[in-house]
Amino acid sequence: MAMLPREGAALAERVLQGDRRAVARAITLVESRDPEGRALMAALYPRTGRAAVVGVTGPPGSGKSTLVDRLIEHHRKAGRTVGVIAVDPSSPFTGGALLGDRVRMEKRATDPDVFIRSMATRGHLGGLSRAAADAARILDASSKDVVLVETVGVGQAEVDVVRLAETVLVVAVPGMGDEIQNIKAGLMEIGDVFVVNKADREGADRTVAELQAWLEHSAAGWSPPVVRTVAATGQGVEELAGEIGKHREWLLAHGGMEAKRRQQAEAELLDAAGEAAVRAARASPRYQKAVEAVARREADPYTALGEL
Amino acid sequence: MAMLPREGAALAERVLQGDRRAVARAITLVESRDPEGRALMAALYPRTGRAAVVGVTGPPGSGKSTLVDRLIEHHRKAGRTVGVIAVDPSSPFTGGALLGDRVRMEKRATDPDVFIRSMATRGHLGGLSRAAADAARILDASSKDVVLVETVGVGQAEVDVVRLAETVLVVAVPGMGDEIQNIKAGLMEIGDVFVVNKADREGADRTVAELQAWLEHSAAGWSPPVVRTVAATGQGVEELAGEIGKHREWLLAHGGMEAKRRQQAEAELLDAAGEAAVRAARASPRYQKAVEAVARREADPYTALGEL
Repeated sequence: MAMLPREGAALAERVLQGDRRAVARAITLVESRDPEGRALMAALYPRTGRAAVVGVTGPPGSGKSTLVDRLIEHHRKAGRTVGVIAVDPSSPFTGGALLGDRVRMEKRATDPDVFIRSMATRGHLGGLSRAAADAARILDASSKDVVLVETVGVGQAEVDVVRLAETVLVVAVPGMGDEIQNIKAGLMEIGDVFVVNKADREGADRTVAELQAWLEHSAAGWSPPVVRTVAATGQGVEELAGEIGKHREWLLAHGGMEAKRRQQAEAELLDAAGEAAVRAARASPRYQKAVEAVARREADPYTALGEL
Repeated sequence: MAMLPREGAALAERVLQGDRRAVARAITLVESRDPEGRALMAALYPRTGRAAVVGVTGPPGSGKSTLVDRLIEHHRKAGRTVGVIAVDPSSPFTGGALLGDRVRMEKRATDPDVFIRSMATRGHLGGLSRAAADAARILDASSKDVVLVETVGVGQAEVDVVRLAETVLVVAVPGMGDEIQNIKAGLMEIGDVFVVNKADREGADRTVAELQAWLEHSAAGWSPPVVRTVAATGQGVEELAGEIGKHREWLLAHGGMEAKRRQQAEAELLDAAGEAAVRAARASPRYQKAVEAVARREADPYTALGEL
C-alpha cells in the first residue's frame, strides 16, 4: 500500500466510518484523477467487497431514475443503507443539470443513510469509468449495504460502468421499436435481470415476450428473469428486488461471484493501465512535438508514441 | 517509419492504389489490433488527410443509414468516390447482423467507387475507436474523396469515433421526447451540422426550433445550421450536402482545420498510448497474479499496476 500523507489517511479513516462529508470529498478527489485519489483508493480498496453492487442501465426515457428511487425506498424499509452513483451525460450549456426524474431521486439524499452522487460524463476523456468505479468502491468502503450505479444511455462507457456491478438490471419500456433493437444489440449480454418498466402501457406483453425469446438463446447458468414494473406507482418493485437478491445468492452459491470479481479486477487493472499511460504521455516533454508531428502527418500515432 | 515486411509493404502500396481487396484486408488487419496493423498504419498515415471525413451520429431510429445512403448517392452523382465506416453495436446472439435500413446502404457497395465496411463494437475492449479511426484513415489513403463514419448510439465510444471527422452531423427526428434531452446532453457540443430527419412528420417545426434555441448559446465561430431532410425521399439532402461543404470551407478559411487536426492527433496519440499500455499489462508474466491480488482485495488496481 502506498504511503498516505497524514490528511489522506485521516480522510480514508473517516470514509470507513461512513462520514458523509468525507465520502463526498473522497469522490471529488477520485473525480479529479489526482495522485491523492489513487493513494486514497489504495487505502480503501482492501475494505471493499461487502456491499451488493447493482448496475441499472437502459435507454433514455425508460424510467431508470424512478426505479432507482423505488429501490432505495425498498432497501430503506428493510433497514439497509444505500449509496447511488448516477452517471449523467452532461451538457456544456447546462453544466450538468439534472435530468427530469432524477430530481425526485435526489430528494432521498436528505435521509442520512442514503448517499447519492451524480457524476457528469463531460470532460472525462475516458477516465469516467475509472472515476465511477472508484466512487462505487468508496460507497462500498463507507459501509453502504447496497450500492446502485445508474447510467443513462447504451454506449460502451455505460457498459464499462455497469460491469463493475455484481448484478446488472437492464430496463426496457413497451413499444420501443428501434430502441429494443439497440438493447438487444448492446445490452442483452450484460443483463442479469431485465425489467419492462411502464408495464401498464400497451405493448408490455409483447416486449416481455420478445425479451424472453431472446433470453432463451443465452448461455447456460443463470437464466435472467424478465420483471414487469410500474416505477411510478411502485408496482413490481418488491418482485424486482427479490430477483436481484436471487441473482446475488446464485452467484455466491455457484462460484459466480469469484469469477465476476476476477473479471472486474481485470477490467479495473487494464483501465488503470490505460489511464496511467495517457497521463505519462501527456507529461512527456516531447508530447507537444509528437502531437504536431501526427497532425502534420509526419508520423503516425504509433510511431510518434514510440518516440515519447 | 517502422520497417515493413515485404508483404506488408506490398499491401500498403495496393491500398494507396485504391485496390478494393487490399483495402478490405487492411481494415481486417487493423481490426485485429495486431502489430502488422500498426506497421501498415505507419506506412499509410503520411498519405492521409486528403479526404473529407464526415461523422454521422444520433439516436437509434433517426434514419442515419438512409441518410448516409442518400449522401453516397449525392457524391456519386458528382463523380466523387466514397468510403463508409459503419460502427454497429453487435449482439452475441446474431453475431453482428445488419440493422434494418443499413441493408439498403450496403447495396451501394456493388459500385466499384464506393467502399462500405461495418465494424462491430463487440469484443473490442475499448479498442474500437482506434480500429475505426485506422479504418477511416485507410479509406482516406486509398484515395476516397469522401469518408463517412456512421455510429449508432450516443455513448462515449460514439463521441470518440465521430471526433475523427472534420464535420460531424447530428441527426434528430421530430417528437423525440426524452431522447432530444439526450442529444442535447451528449451531442450538442460535437455537432457541426444538425439534421432533423423525417421532417415530414408532425412536430418537425418544434424540433427545429428547439435545436436552434440551444445552438444560440454555442460558442463564437461556426454557427451550426439545422437542416430538414426526409431521407426516405431524398428531400433536403442537396441542402445538407451543401452545408457540410460550407463547414469544410469555413474550417479551411479560418484556420479551424489546423486546430481540428491537432485535436485529432492528440486523441489518436492518447488512444494509442492507452492501447499500448493495456497490451503491455496483459503481456506481463505477473499479470495473472496482479489480477488475482485485486480480485481478492489484497491490492488496489493502482498499486497492482505499479508492480507489473
